[in-house]
Amino acid sequence: MNKPFRLAVKAVILDEQSRCLVIRRSHVNQHFVGAWEWPGGKVDAGEDFASATLRETLEETSLKIEITGLAGVTQFEMSTVYVVLLCMEARLTGGELKLSEEHDAFAWMPLGELSGQALPAQVRDLMLDYAKRKGTQP
Amino acid sequence: MNKPFRLAVKAVILDEQSRCLVIRRSHVNQHFVGAWEWPGGKVDAGEDFASATLRETLEETSLKIEITGLAGVTQFEMSTVYVVLLCMEARLTGGELKLSEEHDAFAWMPLGELSGQALPAQVRDLMLDYAKRKGTQP
Repeated sequence: MNKPFRLAVKAVILDEQSRCLVIRRSHVNQHFVGAWEWPGGKVDAGEDFASATLRETLEETSLKIEITGLAGVTQFEMSTVYVVLLCMEARLTGGELKLSEEHDAFAWMPLGELSGQALPAQVRDLMLDYAKRKGTQP
Repeated sequence: MNKPFRLAVKAVILDEQSRCLVIRRSHVNQHFVGAWEWPGGKVDAGEDFASATLRETLEETSLKIEITGLAGVTQFEMSTVYVVLLCMEARLTGGELKLSEEHDAFAWMPLGELSGQALPAQVRDLMLDYAKRKGTQP
């Protein structure tokens, strides 16, 4: 029970048609290979959550974004830590999309289509709750 | 629209009867004087959110706690920043309750009684949603 709590972040990058950018986990990952996810990752020691959201998005997609609001939060347990995952809405401000080796495909996906996709188990409920709240089911 | 996003934290300290510790804002505050709130405050630059939760609780109540889970999240706008407020469930591990000058009363309040109290406008919905989800309405 004495595992520490760590913060991680995701960017829900929306376009004008309320589609979100999702990227597909590649075979270099140990878990959830083939699952679609929002860009993001761990907040580093001493780093604030907003900077981490921008940095992880840049590392994983080469895109520059600005945060526009809160999308949601969830928590899950890992072997040595509990993770609080904070998901922030964002919009593109620059860059050309280029994936790192952690992902092998991307899509601008209507929120209503998330429910038909392979999603990481730990974030699935949050992603579908968000899609439902935004009211854009197909 | 280019206000930065800052992180703040609150501790929902629960006892064995699912009552939460609330403290009442004193006249040294500019806003929401007399409103009941969970202990908490801003995450400092370079500080992680879990340490900030423990530090703010200690400063405001002299109590030592450990985080046990996620209670919820909300966001609100202030004059120069947007605030993302992350609320964490916690339990007491030590200390004797002693308030700072920012608060003038405390109560261990059944979650179902929160709805009858003066609560800070920015956090009210989150507090009541949390109480409802925990299923402890009177």
